Amino acid sequence: MLKKERVRRILDKAQQDQLLVSDPCALYYILEQWFYPGERFLGLLIRKNAKPVLFLNTLFHAEEDPEIEIVYYADGDDVISLLGSCTDHAQALGVDKILPARFLIPMTEKKIASAFELGSEAVDLTRAVKDAEEIALMRKSSEINDRAMEQFKGLIHDGVTEKEAASKIMDIYLSLGAEGFSFEPIVAFGRNAADPHHMPDDTVVKEGDAVLFDVGCRYHGYCSDMTRTFFYKKEPDEKVKTVYNLVRKANEEAEKMLKPGVPLCDVDKKARDIITEGGYGPYFTHRLGHFIGLEDHEYGDVSAANTRKTEAGNIHSIEPGIYHPDILGCRIEDLVLITEDGYEVLNRYPHDIEIIG
Amino acid sequence: MLKKERVRRILDKAQQDQLLVSDPCALYYILEQWFYPGERFLGLLIRKNAKPVLFLNTLFHAEEDPEIEIVYYADGDDVISLLGSCTDHAQALGVDKILPARFLIPMTEKKIASAFELGSEAVDLTRAVKDAEEIALMRKSSEINDRAMEQFKGLIHDGVTEKEAASKIMDIYLSLGAEGFSFEPIVAFGRNAADPHHMPDDTVVKEGDAVLFDVGCRYHGYCSDMTRTFFYKKEPDEKVKTVYNLVRKANEEAEKMLKPGVPLCDVDKKARDIITEGGYGPYFTHRLGHFIGLEDHEYGDVSAANTRKTEAGNIHSIEPGIYHPDILGCRIEDLVLITEDGYEVLNRYPHDIEIIG
Repeated sequence: MLKKERVRRILDKAQQDQLLVSDPCALYYILEQWFYPGERFLGLLIRKNAKPVLFLNTLFHAEEDPEIEIVYYADGDDVISLLGSCTDHAQALGVDKILPARFLIPMTEKKIASAFELGSEAVDLTRAVKDAEEIALMRKSSEINDRAMEQFKGLIHDGVTEKEAASKIMDIYLSLGAEGFSFEPIVAFGRNAADPHHMPDDTVVKEGDAVLFDVGCRYHGYCSDMTRTFFYKKEPDEKVKTVYNLVRKANEEAEKMLKPGVPLCDVDKKARDIITEGGYGPYFTHRLGHFIGLEDHEYGDVSAANTRKTEAGNIHSIEPGIYHPDILGCRIEDLVLITEDGYEVLNRYPHDIEIIG
Repeated sequence: MLKKERVRRILDKAQQDQLLVSDPCALYYILEQWFYPGERFLGLLIRKNAKPVLFLNTLFHAEEDPEIEIVYYADGDDVISLLGSCTDHAQALGVDKILPARFLIPMTEKKIASAFELGSEAVDLTRAVKDAEEIALMRKSSEINDRAMEQFKGLIHDGVTEKEAASKIMDIYLSLGAEGFSFEPIVAFGRNAADPHHMPDDTVVKEGDAVLFDVGCRYHGYCSDMTRTFFYKKEPDEKVKTVYNLVRKANEEAEKMLKPGVPLCDVDKKARDIITEGGYGPYFTHRLGHFIGLEDHEYGDVSAANTRKTEAGNIHSIEPGIYHPDILGCRIEDLVLITEDGYEVLNRYPHDIEIIG
């Protein structure tokens, strides 16, 4: 079913009067149907004052909908010319940033528009402001993630490797009603937690290890994403606690300043300043957060470079970390929703130091 | 380490004197290193009579190698202009078919080449002919898959759902030395096996069900892919056996004709004719096979449309199926290697009717 209001919001923001949307996530956002075209052409042409037209290989099937026109093509058909019969050749066409060269090059050769410009920012900016339906699904996805985190702790016992623990995560998500991962889970023990990009390996957990889970699931397509850092069987020493509590403070103070109209770079700065003042600035090596929705990483981030202001309906992560190989690798990540007058933290799993195992 | 011989083979096949390779799989093929650039620019410029140049974001790191030049750029740098300082603006540039519009449009605006053409077929055709090193890894990957299939049967017991069985597959692969899936495994019971694209759901196995596993793992990056159809606890009746044996015959007769120089469409026809003569032609609804290597589906297929001839070093699937909702859904898939004088079936798991549970 065409989400007409979403299309209207996209065209309002667009620089062009005709846009070709190709990204399957963006199409799901507009049509509420997933297509996995693989290497085949898939595109929805949206235009001011005209019905959207979906170009789809006959191998796939779109729900009938009087609000859209569907053009089916078969393998071997010249789909670019079919598309060209619907575009205004005298105007620029905004194309999707992900449109591959194998389609864009024939479009330019066939001159199906007067110019080809990047047009997907209008879609991305619209997707960054979640509507009520999306917010409900994002809440539920994070609620499942909170409940799953309770169970993930139980996967850690003497002799277990990161890979073994990670291999059990899917079952837990499925049992809680999620559809799958929003990204491959990170499970990191000890020094491995000090590598923010660590992937689960054969490392065995040891008493005193930090145990980091960076995990997320999908619910009706919508992603969750949360990180917690536990300690295995032993209370951490004071120095480690200091680092942990600095990360916690950076997370919580950054969250507290959220409301519509705050420059995203200021939110990043808040967390970064706290960690820098604590003496660990060089060990916080990434941006504070990223936007999220139908994709784990969506357009928009919480970083020094992003001067854009928060808007009600934004959902993004707040995930400060300190990665010190000799003291502690630690990250505390929540998803947050910007509300009309403040914020709502979608993850309820506590931030306290927790000894597991 | 740059695989110089692979670059030489690619440039021999290329229509252009300068090629930009962007696909991470193609880069791994050339450099033996994986990069996951996400939305960031990644490209290897290969040219006749000049050193390859790799353009890489500073977030990533490439192994030092005297045979290539590495240009690091930071977020915010104009990487397209950096690339333009290395291209010959008076000549056409062959670009990767997957190069996204967000990079191709700025390249055309900055005129870093006289024309932009699709250039990746030269890479794809080269990758379709595996060298000795690749063949060894593909053999090992399929050997693991054969051993894993022995264990997958044991996952099926009264009360188990497709999803539950599928969720155990990763552990088995990891325990056998694989790195992970080559694609999300298909486990299908009963009528679900009659849908070739079925994804595991909450269906519970019943006595007499067909139990289809379409599964593959990765070993040193190289994919396996095999399908077997078992029967749960009960000998199938004669009609079902007839359908099964027709699929088996289509598989085995198509395999027997393999050697260098056979048009791939003839191989498809061989299997299809057998199934058609048996009266089930309309129920074999897909091509006979696809090429495979670093990706589960690579350039090249075994279909009525592909008149290209087999070459020694090709590895592809042979996977006839009959999908009859009221009789049986069944597919038997092996990977095969075209050798200098014939073929080698990489999967050794038998084709016989097998009762499990």
